[in-house]
Amino acid sequence: MVIVQMISKLKVGKIQVIKVLVNISTATFIHAGLNTIAMILAIVSMVAVFEYHNARNIPNMYSLHSWIGLTAVIFYSLQLLLGFAVFLLPFAAVPLRAALMPIHIYSGLLIFATVIASALMGITEKLIFSLKNPAYSTSPPEAIFVNCLGLLIVIFGALVLWMASRPHWKRPPEELPKVPRRSGGTPEGTEAESTMTDCSNADKSDVGFSSEAARKRNLKLDEAGQRSTM
Amino acid sequence: MVIVQMISKLKVGKIQVIKVLVNISTATFIHAGLNTIAMILAIVSMVAVFEYHNARNIPNMYSLHSWIGLTAVIFYSLQLLLGFAVFLLPFAAVPLRAALMPIHIYSGLLIFATVIASALMGITEKLIFSLKNPAYSTSPPEAIFVNCLGLLIVIFGALVLWMASRPHWKRPPEELPKVPRRSGGTPEGTEAESTMTDCSNADKSDVGFSSEAARKRNLKLDEAGQRSTM
Repeated sequence: MVIVQMISKLKVGKIQVIKVLVNISTATFIHAGLNTIAMILAIVSMVAVFEYHNARNIPNMYSLHSWIGLTAVIFYSLQLLLGFAVFLLPFAAVPLRAALMPIHIYSGLLIFATVIASALMGITEKLIFSLKNPAYSTSPPEAIFVNCLGLLIVIFGALVLWMASRPHWKRPPEELPKVPRRSGGTPEGTEAESTMTDCSNADKSDVGFSSEAARKRNLKLDEAGQRSTM
Repeated sequence: MVIVQMISKLKVGKIQVIKVLVNISTATFIHAGLNTIAMILAIVSMVAVFEYHNARNIPNMYSLHSWIGLTAVIFYSLQLLLGFAVFLLPFAAVPLRAALMPIHIYSGLLIFATVIASALMGITEKLIFSLKNPAYSTSPPEAIFVNCLGLLIVIFGALVLWMASRPHWKRPPEELPKVPRRSGGTPEGTEAESTMTDCSNADKSDVGFSSEAARKRNLKLDEAGQRSTM
């Protein structure tokens, strides 16, 4: 597995500054790349919806579907931006990465579930508006077909959430980069007191700043499963 | 905290039969009781929907909302029955309880999320059908009001899922009943080789049957967070 090493500054209190190598794995890049593609597709589809509404003189943003859908897209873009800033760029300190990881995972799963709910509401709207003769309420074949599509979307969502929430289906520890302690060594581009650590393993590696309170907090973060599913 | 002790039979292989005391806490009874009340309310509301449809000659079970809603209610009743049979009644063996707990937790959260999605679809349907003059698409005050209700339901769901998925918000270990090892003791109503164990802590207590494979599996069950949120 290709590992890209990035240098991150870690500031504790007002005095101590440690430079930390953060290993970013191929999986993380694939995760970020796929989500960027999904974001682009979401923007294209949003433009299509607004242009379709404008062309047919249908008001924009009146339905609950549109409110929840737009909210999900806004939170998704925030999630993407925050993910880039904190987990891909080399500026965020390791404790910040560790603290934000459980929120990042929860937000990702919540946005995914909200998008599925929004899709189901959109399907409901479309069936009511489009099936007029025969009406949706008479259960024509189109209605049955699209209802089945809706059920399949629910099953898809359930499977993804099951996979994403199984801790033993996460990337196993042996695939994670090894974390050798170094004291005083100066490997490529780092200064004294540097230590290599995978950001997702931040709580397990002693990076020289852990008070008892911080240790407990880190243990809690560990319990909270801050290691990404990717 | 009041603890009700129940005797459970544990069968390993074909020969060994161990009787195990399973501690069922007040929290578990409250959890079961509240869900039973919710199930009764769900059945009452289902009957109301069908009677309303029949009285107004509206076809039943044609919409995606009804399909997903009924599926959720069916799975909810199965979840409740299975919960009673496995976690409340004293017949299920401890390994079975431990194996089913992560599935029980996942199903509970999934059914909860599905019910929220179903409610949002129901709200969408109702707004389209009921708001005619002025129409839903002209955003009358009722539309804004009910859209806000929908958003509040999403926020409610997000908060509940956040609370339920935080491991450190689970019942802390010190509130769990203590698990003293006993070998050969015969406390109230149990036979030789009995051991007291909380079903939710099954993986942590050695109940005298753990091979290396079982130990590893139990560790995995522990990782999977099989301890109930209640």
